Amino acid sequence: MDAVQRAKSGHPGAPMGMADIAEVLWNDFLKFNPANPGWVDRDRFVMSNGHGSMLLYSILHLSGYDLPIEELKNFRQLHSKTPGHPEYGYTPGIETTTGPLGQGLANAVGMAIAERTLAAQFNRPHGLDIVDHYTYVSVGDGCLMEGISHESCSLAGTLGLGKLIAIYDSNQISIDGEVKGWFTEDIPQRFSAYRWHVIADVDGHDPDAVRQAVTEAQAVTDKPSILCCNTIIGLGSPNKQGRASSHGAPLGAEEVALVRETIDWPWPEFEIPAEIYRGWDARQRGAELEAAWSEKFSIYAKRYPGDAAEFRRRTRGDLPDNWQEMSGAYIENTQQKTETIASRKASQNALNAYGPDLPELIGGSADLTGSNLTLRQDSAVISDAVADGNYLFYGVREFAMAAINNGLALHGGFIPYGGTFLIFTEYARNALRMAALMKQRNIFVLTHDSIGLGEDGPTHQAVEQAATLRLIPNMSVWRPCDAVETAVAWKQALENRDKPTALLLSRQSLPCMDRTAEQLAAIERGAYILVEPEGEPELIIIATGSEVAIAADAARLLNEDGKRVRVVSMPSTNAFDGQPEHYRELVLPSTCSRRVAIEAGIPDYWRKYVGLDGKILGVPTFGESAPGSAVFNHFGINAEGLMRLVQTL
Amino acid sequence: MDAVQRAKSGHPGAPMGMADIAEVLWNDFLKFNPANPGWVDRDRFVMSNGHGSMLLYSILHLSGYDLPIEELKNFRQLHSKTPGHPEYGYTPGIETTTGPLGQGLANAVGMAIAERTLAAQFNRPHGLDIVDHYTYVSVGDGCLMEGISHESCSLAGTLGLGKLIAIYDSNQISIDGEVKGWFTEDIPQRFSAYRWHVIADVDGHDPDAVRQAVTEAQAVTDKPSILCCNTIIGLGSPNKQGRASSHGAPLGAEEVALVRETIDWPWPEFEIPAEIYRGWDARQRGAELEAAWSEKFSIYAKRYPGDAAEFRRRTRGDLPDNWQEMSGAYIENTQQKTETIASRKASQNALNAYGPDLPELIGGSADLTGSNLTLRQDSAVISDAVADGNYLFYGVREFAMAAINNGLALHGGFIPYGGTFLIFTEYARNALRMAALMKQRNIFVLTHDSIGLGEDGPTHQAVEQAATLRLIPNMSVWRPCDAVETAVAWKQALENRDKPTALLLSRQSLPCMDRTAEQLAAIERGAYILVEPEGEPELIIIATGSEVAIAADAARLLNEDGKRVRVVSMPSTNAFDGQPEHYRELVLPSTCSRRVAIEAGIPDYWRKYVGLDGKILGVPTFGESAPGSAVFNHFGINAEGLMRLVQTL
Repeated sequence: MDAVQRAKSGHPGAPMGMADIAEVLWNDFLKFNPANPGWVDRDRFVMSNGHGSMLLYSILHLSGYDLPIEELKNFRQLHSKTPGHPEYGYTPGIETTTGPLGQGLANAVGMAIAERTLAAQFNRPHGLDIVDHYTYVSVGDGCLMEGISHESCSLAGTLGLGKLIAIYDSNQISIDGEVKGWFTEDIPQRFSAYRWHVIADVDGHDPDAVRQAVTEAQAVTDKPSILCCNTIIGLGSPNKQGRASSHGAPLGAEEVALVRETIDWPWPEFEIPAEIYRGWDARQRGAELEAAWSEKFSIYAKRYPGDAAEFRRRTRGDLPDNWQEMSGAYIENTQQKTETIASRKASQNALNAYGPDLPELIGGSADLTGSNLTLRQDSAVISDAVADGNYLFYGVREFAMAAINNGLALHGGFIPYGGTFLIFTEYARNALRMAALMKQRNIFVLTHDSIGLGEDGPTHQAVEQAATLRLIPNMSVWRPCDAVETAVAWKQALENRDKPTALLLSRQSLPCMDRTAEQLAAIERGAYILVEPEGEPELIIIATGSEVAIAADAARLLNEDGKRVRVVSMPSTNAFDGQPEHYRELVLPSTCSRRVAIEAGIPDYWRKYVGLDGKILGVPTFGESAPGSAVFNHFGINAEGLMRLVQTL
Repeated sequence: MDAVQRAKSGHPGAPMGMADIAEVLWNDFLKFNPANPGWVDRDRFVMSNGHGSMLLYSILHLSGYDLPIEELKNFRQLHSKTPGHPEYGYTPGIETTTGPLGQGLANAVGMAIAERTLAAQFNRPHGLDIVDHYTYVSVGDGCLMEGISHESCSLAGTLGLGKLIAIYDSNQISIDGEVKGWFTEDIPQRFSAYRWHVIADVDGHDPDAVRQAVTEAQAVTDKPSILCCNTIIGLGSPNKQGRASSHGAPLGAEEVALVRETIDWPWPEFEIPAEIYRGWDARQRGAELEAAWSEKFSIYAKRYPGDAAEFRRRTRGDLPDNWQEMSGAYIENTQQKTETIASRKASQNALNAYGPDLPELIGGSADLTGSNLTLRQDSAVISDAVADGNYLFYGVREFAMAAINNGLALHGGFIPYGGTFLIFTEYARNALRMAALMKQRNIFVLTHDSIGLGEDGPTHQAVEQAATLRLIPNMSVWRPCDAVETAVAWKQALENRDKPTALLLSRQSLPCMDRTAEQLAAIERGAYILVEPEGEPELIIIATGSEVAIAADAARLLNEDGKRVRVVSMPSTNAFDGQPEHYRELVLPSTCSRRVAIEAGIPDYWRKYVGLDGKILGVPTFGESAPGSAVFNHFGINAEGLMRLVQTL
């Protein structure tokens, strides 16, 4: 309350209403070591109702994390460790970035899948359970209104994630007031329908009741549990508790003083009595907990040295030692094969090639397995009965898939991937953004990447999505033109530790381009010269994905005709933008302003590379339902159209 | 089955599995007139599982709509009336575009709200209920997995939409196979939790059972109903029924022949016996139904001529006669007032000014009413008890809000608007796209439009969203710089009958710009000269929204310094792009390539207007948690930063 007051902005209501629950959870249950927030076997706690960040910061401070009181005083200020919402990577002990409601819950589902599967893969008999922790997640009314709560909790129930424990902070208040006007569903009944273990009507201000409920939840091992805790938002504030006015604004100096009276807290702001610190200090207990685990792990490492090394590698997020060699050889092989296949099929081939050496690869599709081609030869399906797998049938739940995969990546030990049609990234959009914001290696396999998908029509044909994905900061986007670029794109996606990657893949077959060794090596730079005329180029065609072959055909015809046309294949604009200036100048010399871009999507984005003088052959509007080639011709996305356009320049 | 086979693509499973249900619904219940698909009081039928389009096309053909058998033969071909998924505006009788799963269900919720509220506003005693129809919606397993099904059905339950009847085609198959591996929730229990009337275990292949269930659903007037119909996907196909193989691909010529044997259908493809046509022909019945309604309406019109005229105006979608005069006067007044207010506040002022003359304005916020400022003086809240209102508390359900509003717009009689933070359009993204694709007047009130929102931090700060919204075809985006541009933006949004509009509004206060009458009139063109130097401009600054004042300040300083700098305010790039060439050339003369764009968002988009030679002052990465002005300064988005950049040019 004091930090919010001092910041003159923030949310005091949830922290005050959930403080009683948090006290029980932190002091009686949670397994963590403040000195090592990265201890792999810690319990995870996710605050999906992230606006309650101040509760987390308070507890992290009190329990001994490296979060001094000065940081709490700087709540919501530039470069503080206490941003308005919990931000992964800013504050020790913050497991994921929350604020956009409902996603933390899905992240927690991902963490619980990670724990269960990692345990199944690494734990050994006779007490050598090196992976054994709970995932707790708090959710507010807002989280449970969001659609993603439905998607992720329905799947969590089907998978029977017994070590996932959700705490519903049921204060019946959201920003617009008492939720009875817009949120009247029966939550216990809803979660029973999802096959969860429901503990209804817990008094969230009675420590014994909370303790008993958590104990009960821990005892249920085949279902996730939800504790429905009745709480009073802003508890302790005589004039604002139980009201929306305590939700998202400081209480005001006067009310803050009244709270001090009401709860009999005589100390000034940010002054905490030593005995309170003593009561909360978890450093000793945390050190002991981790020491016990370390001892167990060293026994494990002696008995299973190979597994221990692999466990360390996977939880560090390193690729295997043979990675460069193996992936390099695969890419060269692919070049030699010159297969004409859809890039979605090339993606599956890459999965099959890389997968056996990467047991950390875990993923699946949002009910488009056969279309996205996300299944691989060594896929083993994860279910309620089978934890030791690597394939997830997410169901038609794109948003949950992307956010669950964020949770898998955050947990550690896994590199997640998820497939859907490119267009349906729109259902998952903010989770892709969150992956980029949190710098998580989450790979999106996005097939049917243009009007080329054909008959399913404009609702299914991505037109603006390639461009809009490229505009997300820290999102790596690849739209490969053939099997070789696809293999490179996958390699980059796997190596990009600190960013997500969107792979945009065709439904239709694409011919394999010829390349010199130099060209092959340049693919990873995001753009490179694919066709070069004799003499200085007078015109540059930039192309991506399925349009590269069109560009190459047109350029060859034009060059035979005495023109001097260069073709630049640009599978990843983001990767290219990250190249040194001299390379960018080499590929797109500023002296050559006669430029044409071709991509079966919204043209505007390409002004970035062709400028105002250039031309763009794209799809300026929504697609059409017809066979793919008919739609391409309808929009003039073909060699003739391109040659016509080039002639106008 | 024959049309899918002929197209060599499509979904035979759902049409064959739902045919028995459809037969009962169309022949025994549905109120429609094939000769007039636009009859305002028709029952609405929405196929949310839109991949089953061929069922709809078949029935529309059989029952006498203007959809000849030739169109069915052209299923999924270019420019046919039978695209792969049902497309609003292509085919008579198609009420909404579906395919992206779950959204049709939310559209139907919107239509049911529209019907109930329009009825409350216009129906009169003694049988003069000129609005009295049902909204039926079919959903598949996929729709119910999607999060939007949760959001929209939870709200529908709270609102008690008694004339909404959902038919769940429970065939337990989705694309990846039997859903038991990923979809095991108890649907009846889930919908009970939502306060729906649940009719479980209906045999979807027993006409009597279906008939009885629909009758029961119609009798429940205070709750929406869901009929859980057990069906067999691809029924009639001896080798594929009940299997995923019948879902999304033609059955194959051999299997098609086997179906003919199995169901004893001796006729060749596309040949339908006259007696079948006779049995389905609904033209006579439809004409009688509409005639009866027309008679009722003419009595109504005699007794309530004002109401009848208003009803006609609203359902035609026309603005009132005084609209131009009234809105013009308000805009001039606003210019004279020169108030420094946030554009979100200016938006509320515009709502208050325009609202009283526009009873068709219906909307609200996704639990951010006080932040989005969507409430207006004459707002009346719609609830389960109150139908005759104009304000909806959507709850924290951005996706449902946007798609429900599409339903309100499609139904007719309303102009919907919905508020959230700009960043959370990402939760609703595909519904915005669907509004654009369907050419619906759906207005999005998107406040907190940049890093200027401050302390809530990067999860809440829109950075790439303005650009990505502008890339959606047929989406009108406005980012006004002050109260005047906001009033114009609202006017344009209301006048744009055939497109949605996104209004991007600031949290923080913005000074009012001075304008001549000519400048005032030019705002609606999307971009205009706001500051002009003496003499030919040597440099042009393009700015939007909160950055316009920064640009104007910098330009004045530079011009005092002897430079010749023009400032172009560009509240709507889309509107500007639609202007005639001579106007665009007037504002941005091609002779002046020294251009700078300033917008507190991702720079790349602006290459479209400044080219490769220009400069862009933007936010190239995610935001920061700090007071708004501190974040602006952190990124150098201020007059000093702009002047520094100009000097490099």
